[in-house]
Amino acid sequence: MIVVGEKLNSSIPSVNQAFAQNDAAYVRGMARKQLSCGADYLDVNTAVFLDQETDKILWAIAEIFDETEAKLMIDSPNPSTIRKVLAEFQPADAILNSITLQPERFDEMVPLVCQYHTKVVALPIDQHGMPESAEHRLEVASELIERLKANNIQEDAIFVDCLVQAVSSNHLAGLEALKTIRLLKERYPSVHVIGGLSNVSFGLPKRVKLNSAFLTAAITAGLDSAILDITNPDVRFSMYCALLLDGQDEYCAQYLAAYRDIFGSPGAVE
Amino acid sequence: MIVVGEKLNSSIPSVNQAFAQNDAAYVRGMARKQLSCGADYLDVNTAVFLDQETDKILWAIAEIFDETEAKLMIDSPNPSTIRKVLAEFQPADAILNSITLQPERFDEMVPLVCQYHTKVVALPIDQHGMPESAEHRLEVASELIERLKANNIQEDAIFVDCLVQAVSSNHLAGLEALKTIRLLKERYPSVHVIGGLSNVSFGLPKRVKLNSAFLTAAITAGLDSAILDITNPDVRFSMYCALLLDGQDEYCAQYLAAYRDIFGSPGAVE
Repeated sequence: MIVVGEKLNSSIPSVNQAFAQNDAAYVRGMARKQLSCGADYLDVNTAVFLDQETDKILWAIAEIFDETEAKLMIDSPNPSTIRKVLAEFQPADAILNSITLQPERFDEMVPLVCQYHTKVVALPIDQHGMPESAEHRLEVASELIERLKANNIQEDAIFVDCLVQAVSSNHLAGLEALKTIRLLKERYPSVHVIGGLSNVSFGLPKRVKLNSAFLTAAITAGLDSAILDITNPDVRFSMYCALLLDGQDEYCAQYLAAYRDIFGSPGAVE
Repeated sequence: MIVVGEKLNSSIPSVNQAFAQNDAAYVRGMARKQLSCGADYLDVNTAVFLDQETDKILWAIAEIFDETEAKLMIDSPNPSTIRKVLAEFQPADAILNSITLQPERFDEMVPLVCQYHTKVVALPIDQHGMPESAEHRLEVASELIERLKANNIQEDAIFVDCLVQAVSSNHLAGLEALKTIRLLKERYPSVHVIGGLSNVSFGLPKRVKLNSAFLTAAITAGLDSAILDITNPDVRFSMYCALLLDGQDEYCAQYLAAYRDIFGSPGAVE
């Protein structure tokens, strides 16, 4: 399981405020906290700052690298911003977020992935927009994967997003995302499947519980990477439950370690 | 989703004590409570009373029927006990638990299912014992299903048990059960797949969380009936999360109703 910490994204109000105030202690602390909770990558996004986006992301990443040895998910709607981050830091083993089949986006992103040997999040979206059904998503994702491979990008450098949408606006949104995961893993076992979890619960109460349930369902359907709040104990423990139930935790070692870490007690069975 | 309440089973110490003391108020109360929490069936099991098993189960069911209009899962290792319950009460729409491919068990149970027009839990177990892999379980289950059908038992009267075992003794137990569910639903869409949840967490801490995670994973894999503690709010809410994520809850109506019922607040979004 590849965990991407979502908590340095400017769409979160408290993070936005910290970025706005150049609050280095906040950024460093949140970077450290996510890594200590098990994040493999840190998503960094400053997109809401519009024309200051590039300055903000360069500043934030400089703080992160001064504090930690984190690997980055460089998350921006602007390929030019991503290019500047790559040129400035040449970060090892980064993931770029994201590429689509939309011609302009595709043509701008591919050279960055190739030149800097990064990984990339691939959204199964084309010039017609976002496909609704899992079958249609598989079709668009397959074309995107094949075109990336034709550009010498390896399957295991590709993270296809399963497109998690809110069940409150479409009650089939969870089902289609889970089906997309299964179909993708069946056709491309070496391609990663990633998802942002929190969309699923938008507009509903008990969001953390529903997000955690979705994480469990998604991991057992084949999701092998996720953008999530790994600092949240419920989400984190749900992930270890799912890995155990999916046969990925021999001797229950990770489950028991997470239990001790999260619930503090050295092993009392209840 | 068909919910079977597990809380009138003599293997639970508090239930055992209530049965031992002929505590009618306990039995009636637990029957009512499970039904009010959404149980479609009540599992009744008095097997630990050995030579008093039949007397105890007849007594318990008389109390249940005096108090409620519950449908029963008649759960006994002894076909003779099941036969006496059926003869005494002729309960409508009951489920018998259980039949296997073991010749003696098969031959004793089939006439009861046919004569009393009941449904039946089918354990994919034969004279060689319990198969480990999902593929082997599918094979044994298929033979059992075909033999039941040859005896004029309809597919939708059959509840195949996916055989949930403890992940603490075999870390692949969850994975094999989930795979069994998927394979069975693929081959026999009209046959029900049922599971007892609590086995999965045996010997581990945070059992309710792990059971709830398994329920979520299992429902999104195709489980359409379960023997569980529906009186537990965590388990119950996990079930509604799973049904929503599996596309079975239009307008999130059941999810929101469960939220109001369990968490008491009329809809505040957090």
